[in-house]
Amino acid sequence: MNLVVDAGNTFVKLAVFEKTKEVSFQVFALEDFCKKSKEIFKVYPEISHAIVSSVGFLSEKEIAMLSVFCKVHVLSHQSKVPFKNSYATPQTLGVDRMALAAAAFYFNPAGNTLVIDAGTCLTYDMVNDYGEYLGGAISPGVAMRYRAMHQQTSKLPLLEKGEIIDFIGNSTESSMHSGVVNGICNEIDGVISQYKQRFLNLTVIFTGGDAQFLSERVKNTIFAHSKFLLLGLNHLLEYNKR
Amino acid sequence: MNLVVDAGNTFVKLAVFEKTKEVSFQVFALEDFCKKSKEIFKVYPEISHAIVSSVGFLSEKEIAMLSVFCKVHVLSHQSKVPFKNSYATPQTLGVDRMALAAAAFYFNPAGNTLVIDAGTCLTYDMVNDYGEYLGGAISPGVAMRYRAMHQQTSKLPLLEKGEIIDFIGNSTESSMHSGVVNGICNEIDGVISQYKQRFLNLTVIFTGGDAQFLSERVKNTIFAHSKFLLLGLNHLLEYNKR
Repeated sequence: MNLVVDAGNTFVKLAVFEKTKEVSFQVFALEDFCKKSKEIFKVYPEISHAIVSSVGFLSEKEIAMLSVFCKVHVLSHQSKVPFKNSYATPQTLGVDRMALAAAAFYFNPAGNTLVIDAGTCLTYDMVNDYGEYLGGAISPGVAMRYRAMHQQTSKLPLLEKGEIIDFIGNSTESSMHSGVVNGICNEIDGVISQYKQRFLNLTVIFTGGDAQFLSERVKNTIFAHSKFLLLGLNHLLEYNKR
Repeated sequence: MNLVVDAGNTFVKLAVFEKTKEVSFQVFALEDFCKKSKEIFKVYPEISHAIVSSVGFLSEKEIAMLSVFCKVHVLSHQSKVPFKNSYATPQTLGVDRMALAAAAFYFNPAGNTLVIDAGTCLTYDMVNDYGEYLGGAISPGVAMRYRAMHQQTSKLPLLEKGEIIDFIGNSTESSMHSGVVNGICNEIDGVISQYKQRFLNLTVIFTGGDAQFLSERVKNTIFAHSKFLLLGLNHLLEYNKR
């Protein structure tokens, strides 16, 4: 059994995989990591390997704690990847984007696959039908856009993401919702169209915390999959065991 | 002669109008406001009226200083506007957006006009062929998107806006440039298309500090005008003199 750990800015996602099947999943705050990890080893003592994807949020102490229970692979640019990495600067490719590319590669091994992850940032990652990771784009995510308008201006309020009644907002609040939500959907639709023009039979996978919320508003055909990144991490763990 | 003052987050724009013709224009830092204003009254002693558009950046002291030289109108939601304001909350409509709507109204009095201002924020403002201001949207501007990704993540660098070689970035830097610049252009193109579907013979005016940079990349036909907001302020001053 594999333990998959995805530590982000504020939350940790923990999943247990039996081969490629997810048998347990939970999300919790970063400070609960040790307590929750110990619990999971009690429930699943069969866990023999773990993979950790962390953009600097888990300390060595926390990773050492995991090593008491199983063999731990900390994902980095030195990890082996199943796809051909055509990134010009592979050492700067974020571990989250490595995991998404791996998931895309296994999901659609001989096809053109674009993964869009709507999390803290909105990332676009392209794996072509030769199994080659090409790169993509990084732009601000939904909550980041709201926060930026509040932090970087003197008058705009801090809003939570909200429904848009019309793309023409007629108040500060509805104008901001339109700007963020309708804006990001137009961005996604436009970018997908650019990729579709270049890549035949493109499969678009939409994942991340805001994927469900946004996918209803995106015009292009997409395949929403909430835990795609975790799937990619599990594949990378298997690949690095060898 | 009119003096038009547009005070933003960090810079002040100062223009002198002889009727609707701009005869002088300068941009300087907020702290130079008093010095620069005094100079302008020496060069143009004919200035009889001034309008001030400031989202809280100029103090009462600075406005009182202007009043020594001429009659000053401080733009607010109590100012008279030539268009019908259909904003649900007119008291929250930013003075910058009031000025853009006024400029649109005078520029194209019997037509459908969408003004897009690419400044600190990216604003969309719609005035229809009945001379009715409908509202629009507010989303983060170019520099704000770069700054947000740096401030709100632990690993992304702070970049200045840059050229995109391809929409598929193959390094952290080129991915971020694609995400911001190609993303914002797709957003603008998509939003313009939505307005075009609803409003016949739509004129799109593109203004603000980043308009020139972005307009080369926007597919839809647009009319770029760098000082559209100042033109609107001058119209509003004339309208409020009566």
